[in-house]
Amino acid sequence: MGQQRPPLLCDVAVLERTATDLSEKFSGFFPEQTVYRYVFESHTALRRTAKVKTHVVSLTRQFAIERLTALALSEGAIVKTVPEVLFVCVHNAGRSQMAAALLHHHAQGAVHVRSAGSAPADTINPAVREVMSEIGLDLAQEFPKPLTDDVVRAADVVITMGCGDACPIYPGKRYLDWELTDPAGKSAEEIRPIRDDIDARVRALLAELVPAAT
Amino acid sequence: MGQQRPPLLCDVAVLERTATDLSEKFSGFFPEQTVYRYVFESHTALRRTAKVKTHVVSLTRQFAIERLTALALSEGAIVKTVPEVLFVCVHNAGRSQMAAALLHHHAQGAVHVRSAGSAPADTINPAVREVMSEIGLDLAQEFPKPLTDDVVRAADVVITMGCGDACPIYPGKRYLDWELTDPAGKSAEEIRPIRDDIDARVRALLAELVPAAT
Repeated sequence: MGQQRPPLLCDVAVLERTATDLSEKFSGFFPEQTVYRYVFESHTALRRTAKVKTHVVSLTRQFAIERLTALALSEGAIVKTVPEVLFVCVHNAGRSQMAAALLHHHAQGAVHVRSAGSAPADTINPAVREVMSEIGLDLAQEFPKPLTDDVVRAADVVITMGCGDACPIYPGKRYLDWELTDPAGKSAEEIRPIRDDIDARVRALLAELVPAAT
Repeated sequence: MGQQRPPLLCDVAVLERTATDLSEKFSGFFPEQTVYRYVFESHTALRRTAKVKTHVVSLTRQFAIERLTALALSEGAIVKTVPEVLFVCVHNAGRSQMAAALLHHHAQGAVHVRSAGSAPADTINPAVREVMSEIGLDLAQEFPKPLTDDVVRAADVVITMGCGDACPIYPGKRYLDWELTDPAGKSAEEIRPIRDDIDARVRALLAELVPAAT
């Protein structure tokens, strides 16, 4: 009949502490129950695609904070002070991570950036991390995240990259589709021109969104 | 700079009608805002993995109803009258769909059954549909769904099939792992023995869960 598995009470306890902590952080914005559901749904969504489960519990906190912030922004509970940009690719392991890091870097706070994937990979492409660290951008704290409705809703500009029409289309947002070579399986040498292509596009976008920032 | 895409206002309008309708259906259980978020998050989650997007809006309704019902059960807002069983495989396109259909059929209402996948496929495996229809079970209304926290929480018994440890572990539930051949890429002839293996396991499980039903 198959084996019985022991409950990982430790993970659940950490998630519950995270939920309690974020309930306080987001009190006034969301009821406790909403925060709890977000924390546990975020955990399940990350865990589905993660091969190494040991990091999932700690990444859940960061992912849930990003989602709850996006939700509060899209519902008008937090006032938007800068344009919100969302980059979406298939794995959220290469193109959208590079674009997000580059835009965040150049914008210096004048734009808020998020990224997500239609089929998130387990980890960020190591060769992508390498070519980004060459230009002084560290992706060590980043991780592939599934595309969720809240981050689409919070965005003013949605930029898709090779993920087809995976992203829901809402009125009042600007949708762009960037045709870029997929860095999956490519060497650092092959990824450098992709990085530089993204860099040029990101700078042009920033100049358009916030002329004063460039 | 890439092309501008027209907003698919039609999809959004249908989703909003679905959300309004389900808000009424679940009024007394959840605030309207919770139902809206569930409908739109369910849509985004299904859309991420669906190749054919035209069906996603109509499947969203069914998926959101299943999730909201699971949530109400797990939070005690709906009283549980029968054991809840969840089958989880990788694609929710073969093994877990066969198990769910077979248990639903044999239990005749004495058990409530759900299924989900850690990396849901676009559609149910046609050869699986064929071997199920041979025994009078029609999977035409079923579709692959991503594993969500709500359905795990609602379950009394969680049966995983080849999806490793993708499923969160909570105390007070019974977890079983069934080792079954993956029907992906196999012919109807090769899938029949897998179906019959699942059928035997499902009958044994039912006899254990609800002795009176067999």
